[in-house]
Amino acid sequence: MFLMEVKLHEFEKVYGDANKAAEARRQYLEKVTGVKLENIGRTIIDLNTVVGRNIENVIGAVQIPVGVAGPLLVRGDYANGYFYVPLATTEGALVASVNRGAKFVTESGGARVKVLKDGMARAPLFRVPSLIDAVELVEWVTGHFEELKKVAESTTRFGKLKDIQHFIVGNYVWLRLVFSTGDAMGMNMVTIASEAVAKFIQENFPKAKLIALSGNMCVDKKANAVNFILGRGKTVVAEAVIKKEILERLGITPEDVHNVNVRKNLIGSALAHSYGFNAHFANIIAAIFIATGQDVAQVVESSMGITSTEAREDGLYISVFLPSLEVGTVGGGTGLPTQREALELLGVAGSGNPPGVNALKFAEIIAAAVLAGELNLLIALARNELASAHKKLGRGAR
Amino acid sequence: MFLMEVKLHEFEKVYGDANKAAEARRQYLEKVTGVKLENIGRTIIDLNTVVGRNIENVIGAVQIPVGVAGPLLVRGDYANGYFYVPLATTEGALVASVNRGAKFVTESGGARVKVLKDGMARAPLFRVPSLIDAVELVEWVTGHFEELKKVAESTTRFGKLKDIQHFIVGNYVWLRLVFSTGDAMGMNMVTIASEAVAKFIQENFPKAKLIALSGNMCVDKKANAVNFILGRGKTVVAEAVIKKEILERLGITPEDVHNVNVRKNLIGSALAHSYGFNAHFANIIAAIFIATGQDVAQVVESSMGITSTEAREDGLYISVFLPSLEVGTVGGGTGLPTQREALELLGVAGSGNPPGVNALKFAEIIAAAVLAGELNLLIALARNELASAHKKLGRGAR
Amino acid sequence: MFLMEVKLHEFEKVYGDANKAAEARRQYLEKVTGVKLENIGRTIIDLNTVVGRNIENVIGAVQIPVGVAGPLLVRGDYANGYFYVPLATTEGALVASVNRGAKFVTESGGARVKVLKDGMARAPLFRVPSLIDAVELVEWVTGHFEELKKVAESTTRFGKLKDIQHFIVGNYVWLRLVFSTGDAMGMNMVTIASEAVAKFIQENFPKAKLIALSGNMCVDKKANAVNFILGRGKTVVAEAVIKKEILERLGITPEDVHNVNVRKNLIGSALAHSYGFNAHFANIIAAIFIATGQDVAQVVESSMGITSTEAREDGLYISVFLPSLEVGTVGGGTGLPTQREALELLGVAGSGNPPGVNALKFAEIIAAAVLAGELNLLIALARNELASAHKKLGRGAR
Amino acid sequence: MFLMEVKLHEFEKVYGDANKAAEARRQYLEKVTGVKLENIGRTIIDLNTVVGRNIENVIGAVQIPVGVAGPLLVRGDYANGYFYVPLATTEGALVASVNRGAKFVTESGGARVKVLKDGMARAPLFRVPSLIDAVELVEWVTGHFEELKKVAESTTRFGKLKDIQHFIVGNYVWLRLVFSTGDAMGMNMVTIASEAVAKFIQENFPKAKLIALSGNMCVDKKANAVNFILGRGKTVVAEAVIKKEILERLGITPEDVHNVNVRKNLIGSALAHSYGFNAHFANIIAAIFIATGQDVAQVVESSMGITSTEAREDGLYISVFLPSLEVGTVGGGTGLPTQREALELLGVAGSGNPPGVNALKFAEIIAAAVLAGELNLLIALARNELASAHKKLGRGAR
Repeated sequence: MFLMEVKLHEFEKVYGDANKAAEARRQYLEKVTGVKLENIGRTIIDLNTVVGRNIENVIGAVQIPVGVAGPLLVRGDYANGYFYVPLATTEGALVASVNRGAKFVTESGGARVKVLKDGMARAPLFRVPSLIDAVELVEWVTGHFEELKKVAESTTRFGKLKDIQHFIVGNYVWLRLVFSTGDAMGMNMVTIASEAVAKFIQENFPKAKLIALSGNMCVDKKANAVNFILGRGKTVVAEAVIKKEILERLGITPEDVHNVNVRKNLIGSALAHSYGFNAHFANIIAAIFIATGQDVAQVVESSMGITSTEAREDGLYISVFLPSLEVGTVGGGTGLPTQREALELLGVAGSGNPPGVNALKFAEIIAAAVLAGELNLLIALARNELASAHKKLGRGAR
Repeated sequence: MFLMEVKLHEFEKVYGDANKAAEARRQYLEKVTGVKLENIGRTIIDLNTVVGRNIENVIGAVQIPVGVAGPLLVRGDYANGYFYVPLATTEGALVASVNRGAKFVTESGGARVKVLKDGMARAPLFRVPSLIDAVELVEWVTGHFEELKKVAESTTRFGKLKDIQHFIVGNYVWLRLVFSTGDAMGMNMVTIASEAVAKFIQENFPKAKLIALSGNMCVDKKANAVNFILGRGKTVVAEAVIKKEILERLGITPEDVHNVNVRKNLIGSALAHSYGFNAHFANIIAAIFIATGQDVAQVVESSMGITSTEAREDGLYISVFLPSLEVGTVGGGTGLPTQREALELLGVAGSGNPPGVNALKFAEIIAAAVLAGELNLLIALARNELASAHKKLGRGAR
Repeated sequence: MFLMEVKLHEFEKVYGDANKAAEARRQYLEKVTGVKLENIGRTIIDLNTVVGRNIENVIGAVQIPVGVAGPLLVRGDYANGYFYVPLATTEGALVASVNRGAKFVTESGGARVKVLKDGMARAPLFRVPSLIDAVELVEWVTGHFEELKKVAESTTRFGKLKDIQHFIVGNYVWLRLVFSTGDAMGMNMVTIASEAVAKFIQENFPKAKLIALSGNMCVDKKANAVNFILGRGKTVVAEAVIKKEILERLGITPEDVHNVNVRKNLIGSALAHSYGFNAHFANIIAAIFIATGQDVAQVVESSMGITSTEAREDGLYISVFLPSLEVGTVGGGTGLPTQREALELLGVAGSGNPPGVNALKFAEIIAAAVLAGELNLLIALARNELASAHKKLGRGAR
Repeated sequence: MFLMEVKLHEFEKVYGDANKAAEARRQYLEKVTGVKLENIGRTIIDLNTVVGRNIENVIGAVQIPVGVAGPLLVRGDYANGYFYVPLATTEGALVASVNRGAKFVTESGGARVKVLKDGMARAPLFRVPSLIDAVELVEWVTGHFEELKKVAESTTRFGKLKDIQHFIVGNYVWLRLVFSTGDAMGMNMVTIASEAVAKFIQENFPKAKLIALSGNMCVDKKANAVNFILGRGKTVVAEAVIKKEILERLGITPEDVHNVNVRKNLIGSALAHSYGFNAHFANIIAAIFIATGQDVAQVVESSMGITSTEAREDGLYISVFLPSLEVGTVGGGTGLPTQREALELLGVAGSGNPPGVNALKFAEIIAAAVLAGELNLLIALARNELASAHKKLGRGAR
C-alpha cells in the first residue's frame, strides 16, 4: 500500500456528486487494496443526502438484517397500544428472545412505563487560577442563569436550558448544562448551545478558561455514575406482572425467576462491580438503536440499569430501570430511508406534536422492549435453555 | 392495532423462502400499521442466508452509510502497514475526525500496537448448599481441570479452555471459563462449551446446581471491573509519538493536549466514576463494529479504557488501553455481504492461518483507529474546535 | 469456653455503677478466657458517662498514641490561622509525614479551603405496589415538602431538612433526606428525624411500606458514587501553591510531583476503578477521626476524593477534593475526656456560635491536613523515599 | 498563634525520654493554644515504646471505650469455639447490635468461616519509554521471578513472594507483588521488599524507571475493584443458617430478612454504585480494628463486601463476603498494652505457631463478628427498630 496523492475527502468537490465520489473512492480502494467493494456500493441511500451531515469519505453502506418482535403491549403516557419493535442484529436468537418476552408481557396485560426524567447534558470544563475563583465562578453562573439560558437558547430552536449542575475539583469547574431537546437526542444541539455559553462565560468571567467543551462529566458514551444517578436523556422505568400460569406453563415459578435475578443480576453484578445489574439490556438497545438511526455509541450508557423482581402471589413482578436512555426521532440517522421506516413502524418518526412527545413515546417503547428481552432471558436461564437457544438459532463459528 | 392470528415467526415455514416470508411480514405490518416498509425491503441480502443464523422474524435490512479513514499506518505484530478503516455511522464529523487523527499518527511513524491478552470468558453461576461445599467445588474443579478442558473442547473445533477463574460469595460459585477462540469473537462457542462443562459438573459434583449459565461475571455487554482488570476478548494497547511540528502547525503544544487529557479524561472521568477514561473510544468502536458485523452490544465493554499522554521533547506521547475488545472475523455478522467486504478491506476476512491471526490483526487495527480518533478529539478540544466541527459536519436537529 | 448464665449486658443493672460493672465483666472474661485485661481496665474514662450513650458491655478502654502535626496555616472561611493537628495512630511515619507536609504548605502561604456543600443524608427505602404508585409517592412527597419538613424537624433542635432527593427503581422508592445538622455529624439526628418522616408517609400515603429506614442510598459507611457526586457531610476542597524553591531544596521540580500524581493517583486509580484518586487521604482522616471522637467507620466514605496538581511557573499547585467528609464537634465520642481535648486543641470543641461553625471550621482544618499529608507522600514518592521512611520510622514486623 | 522556633519533633532528642518530651510538647501546646491537654497526657502507655515505631511528635494518647460482644460461636479452620469480641467505639448501640447478632448466630450453631485467599500486595509503578518496552519488562519480570523472589525475601523474615501480577497502560507498568506475610498485616514488610525488587529491576532492566513504589494498584486504603476481585489481605467468607424459630420469636420470617437484604443491600447499593453491598460491615471492622491495634485507615477496603441471604425451609441463610480484610496480630499497634490484651482475649496475640495461623484465626473471628452485626441490623430493619435503637442507646446530639 502507498500514501495517496489525491485526498479522499476531496472527491465530493472533484466529482460534484456524492454517489460518484463514493464510486471513485471505492475504485481507488479496490485498486490500492485489491478488494472489491461492490456490495457496500449497492445501497439505496442517495449519498448526497448524507454527505456533510452524517458521514464523510463515504463509500456506500452496510446492510444489517432487521427483524420485528411483537406485538408488544405498552401502557405508557405516550405509547399506548400494541407495537412491533424493529431490531437490527446479526446475533441469532435475539429477536426471538424479545419476541417471546413480548408475548409473555402482552399476555400479562402489557408493560407499564414512565419516563421519570428527561434532559440532555453537556458539561464544559473550565480552569480558573484558584479554588476561590472556582467558587466565584459557580456563584456567578448561578446568579446569571437567566442570561446564560438566553445565550444557550439563542443557538437552537428546540433546546431549552433546564439546569446547570456544577462540580468543583481544585481549580477546575464543570458546568453540566441540562437541556430539554424536543424530539432530538440533542447531543449536537446542546454541544453548540454549550459552546455559546462557554464563550459568554469566558468573555464575562475572564478568569475562566475553557479546557474542554466536554469535560467527561456530561457523560457521553462512557459507563458512569453521573448519568446513573442524575440521569441523561430519558430516565425510564418499565414494569409488568407476569401471570403465574404463564410461568407454570414453562415449568417454572415466579420464585425461580426471582432467584436467578437476585443471584445473577444483583449479586453477580455486584461482584463484577458493574453498571449493568441486568441480563442483557444492551442487546435490545443496540438492536433498536441500529434499526432506528440512533447514535449507536450511546448504547454504552443507555444500557446501564437495574432489573428488579418480586415473586408475588399472582405472578412475577419485573421492572427495568434505565437511567440514561438517549434517543431521538429527528436528527442523526433518523431520516435515512430505512431508519425512518423503522421509526414509522413505531409511529414515532420525525417531530411530534408538541415537539418531544415522539421521543418520549419512543423511549417508552424501548423500555418495554428491554423489559421483554430481559424477562425472556431470565426465564431461559431459569429453565437452563441458554446454550440450546444459541445452538439452534445462532449458528456462528464453533 | 390488534393481536395477530398467524404467528409472524412461522412465515418461513409457510412460504418456504425467507425473502418471501419477509415480504409477507412487511405486508402484514403495512396492513396492521399503515406504514410502508419498502426501503427496509430493498436489501441485497439474501435473507435465506441469515434466517436461522443471524435473525428471526426478518423483514429486510437497515442501511447505514460507511466511510473510510486512512491511510492509517499500523505497526503491530499482526497488522503491519497502511489501512483504510471502514466506519459505519450517521454521526457527522466522526469519520473526518478519525481520518485526521490517522493522518497525524501516520505522519508520525504510525501506531505501535500490542495485544496483551486474548481470551473469551463465560462464567456459569452455581449454587451449593454451603460455603464448605463451595470451597470443595472449587477444589474439585481445580483438580479436574484437564477433564473439564476435554469436556469443553469436545463441543468446539477452535475453542481451547485456557483458565478457570473462580469466585465464591457465600454459597454461590462463579467459574469464569476463559477460552481462546481462534478468529471468532467466540461468545456462542464458549456458551456452548460452558454448558457442557456445567452439565458435567452437575453430574459429577451433584451438590452443585447451575443457577445461570451466565452469572454476570463473564462479563458480557455491561461495563464492569472484571473485564477491566482481568481482560476479555483482546486486551490491547496502541501508542504513538505525535511529532511536535504537527501540533505546532495546529497552533498547539504537546503540553496543551496532555493537559486536556489529564483534566478531562482523567480528572473528569474520576469525578464521574467512569469506566471510560477517554474522550470517545465508543464512537470509533461502534462505527467499526457496525461496519464489520461484530456484536454491536459489546461496544459497551469493548469501549472501556484509558487514554494516557505525556508531553515529550519530541512531541506528544499518546496511548490507548483497551482491556476488553471483543472482536472476530468469522461468525456473527462477519459473513454478510457488506460486512465481509469491510473486513476484506482490512485484509482480515474469514479464518486466518493459523486460526486466530485475523482476529488479532483486526484488534490491532481497531486499537490504532481508536488511537487516531482519540488523538484528534483531544487536539480539537485543545483548539476549542469541537462545536464548530459539529456545526459544519453534523447538521442534525437544532 | 462455655455459655454464660449471667448476661453480660445486665451487669450495670446488677452493680449500679458502670465502672464496677466493667470490672466484673473483666473478671468474668478473665475467668472464662484466662486473659488478664488490666490495661484495658486502667482508663481515665468514668464509664458511667459512656454507658447507655457510647457503648454497651463496656470493659474499659483502648489507648492509642496521639501526635501532633503543625503548625499548619489554614486559610478557610471558618478556620483562619495556625493549627496543631492531633493524629491518633500506631502507624509510624504518618505524623511525621503530615508534619513535613504542613511545613511545606505553611511556608508556601498556607492552605486555602472552602466547604462547598454541607448536609447529612438518610435515605429510607419504601416499597409500593407498582411503578405508578412510585411516581405518585414522589409527587406526593414533593407536594408535601413543608409538612414533611415540620415532621422531621419536630424531632430535633438543630436538624433542618434542606432537600429530599428521590430515586425510583421499579416499585421501590428511595427518599434521600438531606439535613443541616449544626455542629453534629448528625447521623443519629437524621435517623430519628427520618423515622418520623417515614412514619408520617406511611400514615398518609398508605400504599407506601417502609422496607428499611436506611436503604443504602444515604450512603453511610460504604464507598459509593452518590456521596461522591451529590456529597454527604461536608464537601470540601483545599489547595495550596507550594513554592518552587521548597521543591528545589528537596531536589525535585513541580513537574516531578505532578507526574507522580497523574500516573499514580489518576491513571493508577483509574485502572483500579477506585474511589480514591489520591495517595492516602484515609491515613490522615482516620488518625484525626480517632483522636477527636468521630465515627471512625465513616472514614470509608470520608476518605474518598481526588488530588489534582499542576506544575506552575511559581511552584506546584495541589488541591484535594473531599466530597463526603462527615464530622462533628458535638455528639458521638466528641465529649470524651481525651477526644474533647483534641477538639479543643483545634478550637472547635462543642457547639459553635452560631451552631454549625465549629464543624465547618473542623472540616476545613481536616481538609488542610489531608492536603499536607498528600503533598508530603507525593514528594516522598517523587524522591523515592517511601520505603526508607517506613524502615526508619515504622519498625513493624518484617 | 505564632511559628515555633524550637522544632517539636526534636523534643525527644532534647529530653532523652519520650514521656518527658511528650509532656514538654503538651506544655508548649498549652502555652500556644491555651488548651489543657491533661487527659491526653494521662495514659498508661510508656511513650518510649511507641516513639520511633508507632508515632512521632507524641503528646499522649486518646482513650476509647471498649465493649465486648459474645459469646460468638465460630467454626473456622483456625478459630473454633466461643469468642468474646472486643469492640472499641463511641457509637451507642453498636456493641449491643453485634452482641444480639452473636446470640442468634451462636444459638443457630455458630458461624462457619473460610479464608479463601491470603496475600498482601504492593504495586510499584514503572515508566518505560514505550509500549514495546513495557511488554519486554513484563516478560523480563516473568522470566526472572525466582531471582526477584530471592531479592524480595532477602529483606524479610516472614514475607514470601507468591505472585507478581502485571498491568500495562501505555508505557506504564504496574507490578503487583503479592506476599504471604505470616501473622503481620504486612504493609511495611512488603513495602520494603518491593523497594528492593524495584531497585533490582531498575539496575537490571535500566529502561524501567520507578515512578512510585505504590502505584495505586496495590490498593491500600482506597475502595477499589482490584482488591474486590483479586483480594488483598485475607479474602474471607462467613455463613450461618439462623433458625426459623429465632426469627419467629422476633415476629419475622426468613423471607422478611431476605427481602430487606435484596432491596437495601443489593438494589440500594447497585443504585449507589457502591463497594458495600452490605448494611454496616464498616462498623464492626472499625471497632475491632481500633480495639486490636490494626491500621484503622484500612477499614476502607477491609469493609468492602457483599451480604447474601436465602430464605430456607429451616431458617435464614446468611453469608458475608469480605474480599480484602487486612489484619495482623504482630506489628503496627498490636503490641500496645491495651491492644495486646484485646488480641489475647481472642487468643490471637503475637506470633502463631506456625507463623500465620494467628492472623488467619483473627480474620475468621472478624468475619464471624461481621456476620453477627450484619444479621442483627437486617433483623432490626425488618422489624423497623433502627431509629428506636439509636434513640435508646445512642444519646448523641439531636
